[in-house]
Amino acid sequence: MEKAVAYIKENQERFVEELFDVLRIPSISAESCHKEDMVKCAQWLVNSLLKAGADRAVVMPTEGNPVVYAEKIVAPEKPTVLIYGHYDVMPVDPVDQWHTAPFEPVIKEGRIWGRGANDDKGQSFMHVKAFEAMVATGELPCNVKFMIEGEEEIGSEHLSKWCADHKEMLAADVILVSDTSLLAWDTPSITCGLRGLCYMEVEVTGPNKDLHSGLYGGAVANPANVLSKLVASLVDDQGHITIPHFYDKVRELTPGERDAFNKAPFSLEKYKDALDIDDVQGEAGYTTMERTGVRPSLDVNGIWGGYTGEGTKTVIPSKASAKISMRLVPDQNFEEIAKLFTAHFEAIAPSSVKVCVKTLHGGEPYVSPTDLPAYRAAAKAIEKTFGKAPLPFYSGGSIPIISTFEKILGLKSILMGFGLDRDAIHSPNESYGLENFYRGIETIVWFYRYFAEK
Amino acid sequence: MEKAVAYIKENQERFVEELFDVLRIPSISAESCHKEDMVKCAQWLVNSLLKAGADRAVVMPTEGNPVVYAEKIVAPEKPTVLIYGHYDVMPVDPVDQWHTAPFEPVIKEGRIWGRGANDDKGQSFMHVKAFEAMVATGELPCNVKFMIEGEEEIGSEHLSKWCADHKEMLAADVILVSDTSLLAWDTPSITCGLRGLCYMEVEVTGPNKDLHSGLYGGAVANPANVLSKLVASLVDDQGHITIPHFYDKVRELTPGERDAFNKAPFSLEKYKDALDIDDVQGEAGYTTMERTGVRPSLDVNGIWGGYTGEGTKTVIPSKASAKISMRLVPDQNFEEIAKLFTAHFEAIAPSSVKVCVKTLHGGEPYVSPTDLPAYRAAAKAIEKTFGKAPLPFYSGGSIPIISTFEKILGLKSILMGFGLDRDAIHSPNESYGLENFYRGIETIVWFYRYFAEK
Repeated sequence: MEKAVAYIKENQERFVEELFDVLRIPSISAESCHKEDMVKCAQWLVNSLLKAGADRAVVMPTEGNPVVYAEKIVAPEKPTVLIYGHYDVMPVDPVDQWHTAPFEPVIKEGRIWGRGANDDKGQSFMHVKAFEAMVATGELPCNVKFMIEGEEEIGSEHLSKWCADHKEMLAADVILVSDTSLLAWDTPSITCGLRGLCYMEVEVTGPNKDLHSGLYGGAVANPANVLSKLVASLVDDQGHITIPHFYDKVRELTPGERDAFNKAPFSLEKYKDALDIDDVQGEAGYTTMERTGVRPSLDVNGIWGGYTGEGTKTVIPSKASAKISMRLVPDQNFEEIAKLFTAHFEAIAPSSVKVCVKTLHGGEPYVSPTDLPAYRAAAKAIEKTFGKAPLPFYSGGSIPIISTFEKILGLKSILMGFGLDRDAIHSPNESYGLENFYRGIETIVWFYRYFAEK
Repeated sequence: MEKAVAYIKENQERFVEELFDVLRIPSISAESCHKEDMVKCAQWLVNSLLKAGADRAVVMPTEGNPVVYAEKIVAPEKPTVLIYGHYDVMPVDPVDQWHTAPFEPVIKEGRIWGRGANDDKGQSFMHVKAFEAMVATGELPCNVKFMIEGEEEIGSEHLSKWCADHKEMLAADVILVSDTSLLAWDTPSITCGLRGLCYMEVEVTGPNKDLHSGLYGGAVANPANVLSKLVASLVDDQGHITIPHFYDKVRELTPGERDAFNKAPFSLEKYKDALDIDDVQGEAGYTTMERTGVRPSLDVNGIWGGYTGEGTKTVIPSKASAKISMRLVPDQNFEEIAKLFTAHFEAIAPSSVKVCVKTLHGGEPYVSPTDLPAYRAAAKAIEKTFGKAPLPFYSGGSIPIISTFEKILGLKSILMGFGLDRDAIHSPNESYGLENFYRGIETIVWFYRYFAEK
C-alpha cells in the first residue's frame, strides 16, 4: 500500500478542497426546506465516486431522501467491503453561537470548521478518497461498495426498506463505517458497542386557548407546570428511569466485565473541566464511562411552551411540549420501550390535561464482537498508523441503522471512526482535525490490505 | 345626564371608528421594536383628549414609555376624578391562532376583534368618550384628570416615580379604572380585590455547550431535565407552593367570609366546558373562586430549552429557562416573595448545574373597601344601566400599580371594568362587545353624576 499512501500525501490538499465543496451544501435532513439540498448532495457524491474510480455510482430514490450507491468489482471471488456513511447533517441552531458560518467551511488552527466537517461528510469522504488512492495506484485488493444515505440524523427511516429491496446488490463480507470517535488522539479505539435510541415527542394540552394567568392561575392546570412534573417524574433521585419494566431487558455487566470496562483511561477532572461543570450527574452505582457506555439514559432534547420572548407575558399556555429521547442498551428493544414510555406517560397524566405521545424514531443497540477478522484488520490498521493498538470502546451514541443491517443484510459492522470529542458534532462550531482526516484515509487503506489478506 | 346619554347614542358609531384608529397602532410594550408605536399611540390619545374637551393634554416622558396626562378643571372646589388606564397591549403570539389580524380591528357578531379591543384601549377609551359626552352637553359635574400609561403589561416600571414626581398635579379624590371584567353580563360586579404579582425568570446552565445526547446522556446533568425537576418541585401534589415562608403573610378568610365569597354565581360545569377541560386543578381545600380570588398561585408562563424545531435533534442543551410568575394575596409583599423564591430556587439546584434567577416585575395585592363614597357611586351607576346591583368581586388578576397609587398618591381606586371572560384578553382573538363599550360609556357618565352628588 506504499503507493496509495504516497498518493494520499501528494493529493491531501486537493482532498480537503473537494470536501469543502460538499460541506457547502446545507443538507439538514430534519428540516424539510432542505429537500433539494439533499438531492444536490447525493448527486455531488455520485460524481465524486465516479471520478474516484467506481464502475457504477447512482442516486437511488427512497420514499425519503435518496441513497448514494456505488461499486467497483475487482473480481467476483474476492472479498467485498461495504462502506456505510451519511451525507445528511444536524440542524445548526443555535446559529448565533457559531464563530464561523456553518456552511462556509474554513481552516483554522489545523482544523476544518463547519457543519458536517466530521459528522459524517468528513468521515464518509475519507472512504471515497482512500478508494481513489487505491484505484489510482492499482492497489485496491478487493471489491468495494458504497451506501451513503441521507437520513441518518433523523433515524434512517427509509434505509431498511431500501436495504431489503436491494439485498443482492449489497452482498458483502462486512460493513465498514466511520461515524464514531477515538477515545483520544493518543488512545485510539474502535467502537464495538452502540446504544440504541428511542426518540419521543409529548404534548400536554390544558385549556383550549392561552389564558390570563391572573384570572385563571391556581384554578386551572397549567400545561407547562404539568409537563415539568411529568418529565421530572421520569427519572428518580437515584438517576433511575421510572417507566415500569424499562430495565427488564437491560443486560447487567459481570464484575469482571465492569473491571475491564473501567480500564480505559478516563479523568473525571478533565471531563468536568472540558464541560465547565462542577459535578457530573447520573445513575447511582455506576461510573461515568458505564453511564454512557452500558447503561440506558433519558434526556429532554427540547422543551417549549408559553411565552418565550423578551420581557413578560402573564399567560397560562394552552399547550406545552417536549422532545424526550432514551438511549438503550442490549437487549432493550426500541419498539417495546416506545410502547412502555407511551403507556406510562399517558397513565401518569392528571385528568386536568390531555396528553399526546408520538414516537419520532429509534433503533436497536448494537454490539460488535472483537474476534471478527474485519475487527482484527481494523485493529491492525490503526496500530500501523497510530503506533498503538486500539481499545475496544462502548460508545454512548447511537447509529440505529447498524443493528438493522445485521438483521436485514446479515452483516456485522466495524465502527472505525476518527473523530474526537472536541469536534463538537451536533453542536455549534463542529470541526474536524486535518490530521484526523489525513490519517483516517491512510488507516482505511491499511484496513483493506489487512482485510484482503485474512 | 339625559343629554350626555343621548349624545352617546347619537355618536356611538363614530366612537367605534375612532377606537379602531388607536387599535391599529401595535403598541406592544414587551417588545422593544415597538418603541415608536408607543409614542405614536400616546400622541394619538393626547389629540383625542384635546378634541374631547380637555383644557390640557400632554405626552409626558418617563425613562420608559411616555404617560398621557390630561385634565379639565371645572372648578377647584369641586371633587376630582383621576382616570387611570393604559395604552400598551400584550404581545400577539401565537399569531397563527388569530382568526383576524391582531392590529386590523373588525366588527363581527356584534364584537370588536383585535389586540387591545378590551385590554385596555377599549376600556380606557370609554372614559375619553364619556368625558366628551359630558363636556359637549355641559353636564360634566366635577374635575377630571387622565393618566394613561404605556407600561402596564410589563409592570408599570416607571409610573411610580412619575406619580411621585407629579403628586400635586395628580391630586384627586379617587382613581377610577376600567381594566377588569364583570362576572357576567347578567351578573354585574365591581372588582374590590386584586392579586399581586411576582414575575421571575430562571435559567439553568449545565455544560458549556450543547452536547450529543448519546455520547453524554446519562452522565451529565441535562439542564432541561433539571429545570423540569426544579419547577415541578415548586408546587406539591396538594397544590401548595413549597417555597419556605411563602404563606407566612397570607390572610386566611374566616368561615363567614368564605361563605359570602362563595355566594357569587358560579357553575363549575360551564367553567370546564368553556375551557374544554375535564377537570380543574388547584390548591386542595379551596373552591375555584377562592383559588383565583383569595389564594396565591404559581404558574409557568413560558419554558424553553434545546431543540424545538421540526423533527429530531439528539442534543443535551447547554441551558434551559422558564418564566415563572406568582399571584399574591393580602398581605404578601412582592419584594419579599421575590427574595424567598430566589433563595429557594438557588438552594434546591443540584451542584451539577448553575442557576440564575431574575425578578422581572411585580406588584402588591390590593383591596378596595366597599363602603367608600366612590364605590357606592359606581354601584349605583351600574344598577342604573344594568338594572341590577353589582356584586363585589375578588379578581385573580393583577394591576400592580393600583396598590402603588395608594402608597404614593394616598388614593383608593375603584375598579369598574366592563369586560367579560369571553373577551380573551392576553390571548389570541381578543375581542370586546359593542354593547359593553356603549353601556360602559353610559355607566361612566352616571358614575360622575352620583359621585358629584355625594
